[in-house]
Amino acid sequence: MGLIQTWGMADLSRNIPTNGSISLTLSTLEVTTTVQWRVDLTRDRIMINEGNSGYTTVSEQRIVQRISAHLDHVRRLSGQSSRAFVEVQSTFPPRLGVSLQAPLFASLTVAAVKAAGQELPIRDLTALARLGAGPACQSVPGGFVEWHHGDSHETSYAESIAPAEHWPLVDLIAIVSGMGQLTDTLEHDQRLAPTSPLYAMRTQSAEARLAECRQAIQNRDFDHLADIVEMDSRLVRAVTLTSEPPLYYWAPSTLTIIDRVRAWRMAGLQVAYCVAPGPNAHCICTPEDADLVETQLQSVPGILDIKRAKVGGPTRLVG
Amino acid sequence: MGLIQTWGMADLSRNIPTNGSISLTLSTLEVTTTVQWRVDLTRDRIMINEGNSGYTTVSEQRIVQRISAHLDHVRRLSGQSSRAFVEVQSTFPPRLGVSLQAPLFASLTVAAVKAAGQELPIRDLTALARLGAGPACQSVPGGFVEWHHGDSHETSYAESIAPAEHWPLVDLIAIVSGMGQLTDTLEHDQRLAPTSPLYAMRTQSAEARLAECRQAIQNRDFDHLADIVEMDSRLVRAVTLTSEPPLYYWAPSTLTIIDRVRAWRMAGLQVAYCVAPGPNAHCICTPEDADLVETQLQSVPGILDIKRAKVGGPTRLVG
Repeated sequence: MGLIQTWGMADLSRNIPTNGSISLTLSTLEVTTTVQWRVDLTRDRIMINEGNSGYTTVSEQRIVQRISAHLDHVRRLSGQSSRAFVEVQSTFPPRLGVSLQAPLFASLTVAAVKAAGQELPIRDLTALARLGAGPACQSVPGGFVEWHHGDSHETSYAESIAPAEHWPLVDLIAIVSGMGQLTDTLEHDQRLAPTSPLYAMRTQSAEARLAECRQAIQNRDFDHLADIVEMDSRLVRAVTLTSEPPLYYWAPSTLTIIDRVRAWRMAGLQVAYCVAPGPNAHCICTPEDADLVETQLQSVPGILDIKRAKVGGPTRLVG
Repeated sequence: MGLIQTWGMADLSRNIPTNGSISLTLSTLEVTTTVQWRVDLTRDRIMINEGNSGYTTVSEQRIVQRISAHLDHVRRLSGQSSRAFVEVQSTFPPRLGVSLQAPLFASLTVAAVKAAGQELPIRDLTALARLGAGPACQSVPGGFVEWHHGDSHETSYAESIAPAEHWPLVDLIAIVSGMGQLTDTLEHDQRLAPTSPLYAMRTQSAEARLAECRQAIQNRDFDHLADIVEMDSRLVRAVTLTSEPPLYYWAPSTLTIIDRVRAWRMAGLQVAYCVAPGPNAHCICTPEDADLVETQLQSVPGILDIKRAKVGGPTRLVG
């Protein structure tokens, strides 16, 4: 979940963004990916179990093609020439409005490289995951993660700037609208970023926000974090709202939640809003205030569901 | 009502904005101001009849001071040394969320200059009105009015670029929240404009929008007008939302109206939204579609009231 967000790509084909970002790895929402390289397959076979709703062979041509294209990167790197049997198991409830792509491509990368008998430094794993889906690089290291935008495949990578235990923040995701998980709408939408007359200004000012966000995390300074994260959300809002065509994203309830979060913080609760492109609002809070914020959120009109996530660890090999 | 809006001042003391603007003069919402220069008064006396609620001597110290300060400009210009008795009669319903200041200072200027026995070219009258309240210059000439930002008192003036009859558009003002009329909140808020990292970019790009808006008006090209007016509203939104501190302004219902207006236009209605800083949404429409849009607006939740205004004429002398 992006505290300081990327919006707009310097290199679309390799997912190299125009500005760096800092994100919070979310636990609770887990994706487990199994990769077997099998000589008996003539093409990659991909099965996705979405939200414990039973396995379904993914029919969305687009995501199958992308997973297969990502496996090609691993094949090139490892000398592996077989096709793969891939199983993806997700605890994401359907239509959560949080992209499944980041944890999917992160776990796919880690599993496929391991299954191919390769050992890669974590930095290289993050860069490789990035080729599958930009934000996937941030799902590899765990905790609070910075994605250095870089200017080449090697220099556009992610690293953990603090482990999950450093600051056990809670993310209460207020779902105000159902959105598909596997679509690549957001990636497509990012192509519009440069059409906003405000895009360059946001990009230029990102470095300063990254430095402030890093410092707030290091000092566990919630007020400072809240200010900078909310400002960055509004800046992304400004760019999306002024692209051509405009991307409206926010629902009326999104504004209601923002309004309440501001009032709750004024009243002393440690809570900040963070809205990635889309209508759902993340309410970041300290563990001490999470229960009270969740109770308050339940009385806000227009919220369909609230999901609670903690700061999660790195993508790891299971079994 | 600003089609292309000003937001931010190059010279706060003389109300010279950083970018030019184009506005629609609104009829229906009328202000009648009477000025008598009277040797028997030791100070200016100001009475305001707001929304036909009976005359009340204005007690708000701030507005009385401002009207008196504006009368000083006229005294200096005309050699008039008396104090004035000023009566302001307004058809604005209270808490309309449309600033009374523009028509008030426009009519005050025209009436006070005339009562002082002066004749001024309209361009000079607009510049003089601007000293009272920036947007007042736009209320003087009538119809579709451009305010040239200029860089001095003489060059920051307004002129009509098309009379009201040129294109009889209708403005349906959807009131979603009560706001005081006589406050100078917006003027104060504009001081924050330069704190937004996006401010300079919006200002720089204003000239191109002014040219497009001018052309759309000349050609009575509604679709083109809608695109450019809505874009400018979103750009102002972007700047206000990212100033420090941020100015939230929009209510959840504001987003609902914008969403509906877009859907209605997609369905073929000639309607565009225009949102000045504040929560209320102006729905500009062609006279042919105004009734249908008004009926549709009546079913949108969260709207307290709908006011209909037409394109109005110049500030004129009555009696």
